[in-house]
Amino acid sequence: MMKLTAKIMMAPAMALFLVASAAHGEPALFPKGELSTTRNHTGDIWLKELNVGDDVFDPSIAVADYGPGAKLDWHIHPGGQVLVITQGTGYYQEKGKPARLVHKGDVIKSAPGVEHWHGATPSSDFSYFAVTPTQKGKTVWLLPVTPAEYQHAAAQ
Amino acid sequence: MMKLTAKIMMAPAMALFLVASAAHGEPALFPKGELSTTRNHTGDIWLKELNVGDDVFDPSIAVADYGPGAKLDWHIHPGGQVLVITQGTGYYQEKGKPARLVHKGDVIKSAPGVEHWHGATPSSDFSYFAVTPTQKGKTVWLLPVTPAEYQHAAAQ
Repeated sequence: MMKLTAKIMMAPAMALFLVASAAHGEPALFPKGELSTTRNHTGDIWLKELNVGDDVFDPSIAVADYGPGAKLDWHIHPGGQVLVITQGTGYYQEKGKPARLVHKGDVIKSAPGVEHWHGATPSSDFSYFAVTPTQKGKTVWLLPVTPAEYQHAAAQ
Repeated sequence: MMKLTAKIMMAPAMALFLVASAAHGEPALFPKGELSTTRNHTGDIWLKELNVGDDVFDPSIAVADYGPGAKLDWHIHPGGQVLVITQGTGYYQEKGKPARLVHKGDVIKSAPGVEHWHGATPSSDFSYFAVTPTQKGKTVWLLPVTPAEYQHAAAQ
């Protein structure tokens, strides 16, 4: 009985895994980086730092890979950030504005000081290059995206 | 007789085209940008600007696609540059050092003030993201890469 319950509970997870695999398509440009263990997101996010920003060469350049449904908390970049979406589909939302559905090939500019979040859709993975100036201050982390906020983004 | 001569002359060009097509493989992340008409390179280079750098958000972010054999002249970035190779194979050489063969997935950091050039190999196209801080000054263009310098890079 316990075993049957476990199988029934695993079915939706397996279905989600298959959808995610199918959505994956061509191989990524880079192998996935380190699985993030920070407390500023929900779901699985892998990070690979390509360039650490410093006062000689400012912008940090990193690759992020999100599993389906993974999302960052609301946050602010004091120096702004540009995201170049390299795979999958996700959401980008600035505070007080509707969420935008964003796809591979899109370029998103997050202006300095603007509160926002980004994440994968429930059924697709989502990857980008992030270019983030570092000399104007570190990322300011705010509240998690609520389930209602995420569902609202998905319903748009 | 004229026709036969033309066919013989075209054979190497056709062979190069076939090699280049085979090397191309999967589709690029972005459609090619504008064919460059500046005088700081030889061969065909297409440029697509994803972000224009300014004092609010410094780095310029651009995609460059090189045809086989295309190469930039020697040059210097006052604020440095990071290249993320997204397709194909090329050369990167700093003045006084051997040329490096660079491939899809490589990340090249060109320090501020260092004279260098980069370009495609004779038989492969070559694409990258370039992240270039703009507030420390514009790119300084120097002499063209000579045929001897290019052949030396190819022979290494």
